[in-house]
Amino acid sequence: MGIVLKDVLAILPGKEKDEVRATSIYIEGNRIAAVGDRPEGFREDKVIEGKDRLVIPGLVNCHTHSYMAFMRNVADDLPFMDWLFGTVDPIEQQMTDEDTYWGACLAILEMVKSGTTCFNDMQMNIHQTTRAVKESGMRAVISRGLVGSGNDEAGQMRLRQAYEERDAAKDCDRLTFMLGPHAPYTCDDGFMRVVSEEAKKNGMRIHVHLSESVSEIEQIREKYGCTPIEMAAKNGLFDVPAVAAHCVQVTEADMDILKEKQVSVVTNPASNMKLGNGFAPVAKMLEKGINVCLGTDGAASNNSLNMFHELNLLALIHKGVNKTPQCVSAREGFRIATINGAKALGLDQEIGSIEVGKKADLAVLNLNTPSLTPRNNLVAGLSYSANGSEVETVIIDGKIVMEDRKVLTMDEELVYKKIDGIITRMGLDKKEY
Amino acid sequence: MGIVLKDVLAILPGKEKDEVRATSIYIEGNRIAAVGDRPEGFREDKVIEGKDRLVIPGLVNCHTHSYMAFMRNVADDLPFMDWLFGTVDPIEQQMTDEDTYWGACLAILEMVKSGTTCFNDMQMNIHQTTRAVKESGMRAVISRGLVGSGNDEAGQMRLRQAYEERDAAKDCDRLTFMLGPHAPYTCDDGFMRVVSEEAKKNGMRIHVHLSESVSEIEQIREKYGCTPIEMAAKNGLFDVPAVAAHCVQVTEADMDILKEKQVSVVTNPASNMKLGNGFAPVAKMLEKGINVCLGTDGAASNNSLNMFHELNLLALIHKGVNKTPQCVSAREGFRIATINGAKALGLDQEIGSIEVGKKADLAVLNLNTPSLTPRNNLVAGLSYSANGSEVETVIIDGKIVMEDRKVLTMDEELVYKKIDGIITRMGLDKKEY
Repeated sequence: MGIVLKDVLAILPGKEKDEVRATSIYIEGNRIAAVGDRPEGFREDKVIEGKDRLVIPGLVNCHTHSYMAFMRNVADDLPFMDWLFGTVDPIEQQMTDEDTYWGACLAILEMVKSGTTCFNDMQMNIHQTTRAVKESGMRAVISRGLVGSGNDEAGQMRLRQAYEERDAAKDCDRLTFMLGPHAPYTCDDGFMRVVSEEAKKNGMRIHVHLSESVSEIEQIREKYGCTPIEMAAKNGLFDVPAVAAHCVQVTEADMDILKEKQVSVVTNPASNMKLGNGFAPVAKMLEKGINVCLGTDGAASNNSLNMFHELNLLALIHKGVNKTPQCVSAREGFRIATINGAKALGLDQEIGSIEVGKKADLAVLNLNTPSLTPRNNLVAGLSYSANGSEVETVIIDGKIVMEDRKVLTMDEELVYKKIDGIITRMGLDKKEY
Repeated sequence: MGIVLKDVLAILPGKEKDEVRATSIYIEGNRIAAVGDRPEGFREDKVIEGKDRLVIPGLVNCHTHSYMAFMRNVADDLPFMDWLFGTVDPIEQQMTDEDTYWGACLAILEMVKSGTTCFNDMQMNIHQTTRAVKESGMRAVISRGLVGSGNDEAGQMRLRQAYEERDAAKDCDRLTFMLGPHAPYTCDDGFMRVVSEEAKKNGMRIHVHLSESVSEIEQIREKYGCTPIEMAAKNGLFDVPAVAAHCVQVTEADMDILKEKQVSVVTNPASNMKLGNGFAPVAKMLEKGINVCLGTDGAASNNSLNMFHELNLLALIHKGVNKTPQCVSAREGFRIATINGAKALGLDQEIGSIEVGKKADLAVLNLNTPSLTPRNNLVAGLSYSANGSEVETVIIDGKIVMEDRKVLTMDEELVYKKIDGIITRMGLDKKEY
């Protein structure tokens, strides 16, 4: 299938910085065939008219738990460990495979409708998130969340599930897999070493939660006499390419380890604020040259999976925290939400920017909105005033997944109905009305 | 005209807290005639079907500068005084009446499309914002920004303009007026006293910027040996009901003055972060019983006039700053964005909640969106995950101003065209494409 995005504005990588340029984009199969002139022999099956339209690379959500979408609003205003072990964990115990599937469907709907074309997911019920990804046309990187002690059977069982899920998804090249040791407070040092060895042996990346809350820091210091990041480093977790979510409570030495080991840090501003964990030192990390990328975390702790919302927080809060308007610029924010994310996932040769030869993962925005008027600086517009509803068309892997805000691959109303059914069954419906 | 919002969900004031209830709302003329049963003799000219719809009181934006909407993205990432005197001020010098008018039109479009039905504006070119308000069907409280020294002619001229504008708008009861001494660094103590006397004499409220930046605090301390809030209090500014925007850099004693004098504080989280001014101590102010309300500030320093965006920031950042998830709850946030704002403007008998006898200023949201699924806690949904695009219909003063997201009173595309024309004429178009 040949798609042309005709006479659009597009955010393209320039020599020194991303640039907004008037151009046309040609898609052949699942890749960008040309930016600018029509390639020879290009067969045009579909034309998307570009008047008043801006094309951006799809946003990359580098840390979420898609199944949690059905838990939106169920655990607000609770301290971190009460939130996790007192509320989320008991709900997870009741979760069926179908609940995970519909949760993932809701998450994918929300992400597609706000311009996200790839997400990095840590989840629990195998085959369900991958099923939703396959059906929806989304791109995802999946980690089966791993918890365990040493070589215990619980941990080994989860590792087997991780491989089983990976192997069953070999028919879908929009899916890749990582190993996901949950966190230093749910995986002991022995199990961390087991997972590190598995990752090395199988050429897999690591997706882990690190240094999220003060209570985590205290627990790990008491148990191991070091920080969670030091604990992870000692147990080999950073000997393969790793993606560390949160990194809120970090020392100078922690950041030096992250830089030296080329760990990508996923900052999750909404979740970190909402759970009272504070603000990750993103400006400092960027200064040190750490690859910082962006994530929404799950809907139980955000409560939004809209990456424009997250980008906006990213571009604002560090100016407030550091008391300077010259900190985490709109341009930096946009790269953090796109190409830096692709790099963290090992996909920067394939996605994260609009370049010939890359996969066609694109979002088309309607510029006839107050939030993007005037058009003097559209990168600033995306970071500071867009809210995601400007996204009109989404293309993933060369296929149109959303057109005129209608998601073509999913039955939206059925998803909403199923989700309300789950929370009613679980008694999570507070019946306020 | 009789309008019925039939079988909707609505956020209604309950005995102890706002409640989401299934009901119908009847509007006669510009007021809410009934909530629940159809009033006797009600003539139904228009029915809005309520399936999957939530009705909320329109949001009240308590501090903005509507004309600045055309300055979106023109002055990003600059320190406060450079932003104001180096960039915004020179643009304002070139501004024509028409620029102010189209700026206000863009602002009103953005606000209506995101559920705001009343705004508190400080502006410069008289008759232009009121013209946009009259034509659009919006509700507004207008202050002609006043700057002056003692009894100087500049200050007196602006005062005359303030009255002239007020008097010319007597035919529109959606418009009310305040006196707007700009700030302690642009109005000296003598002029503050002149304005205070005028306000007392004419029964007008005060709208002022206070304690926004560290440099303001330093300037005022050097000049008067006190804080800006103390300076304002000494010069009688709080002897009439006053609305103080910002109050970021405040002492304990400042907050006690604000409480004692029943000053309403407008917090502007995005603007305060974006200009590097930090975070207002909102949790502390709420504890002290200060009436805190919410504003977007102007688009040159936010850069959004979407109150859902602001509400979301409000409900998140103070949890991050105070390192507790139990701080500025979704419920408190919603009240801050509605009834507290109405109270600040002296309009709480008329707007700010859905009650029989109040003006019909309402927003109808479509609940068939990922952001508001599940429907277990819709107040949390509004504060944490809604982005404003869920607003489908807006009613102001009993008139439908927006229906199915189409603003009926304005020509949207013309507004966008005019705004792009202004920035091109002023050379503010960075011509990135």
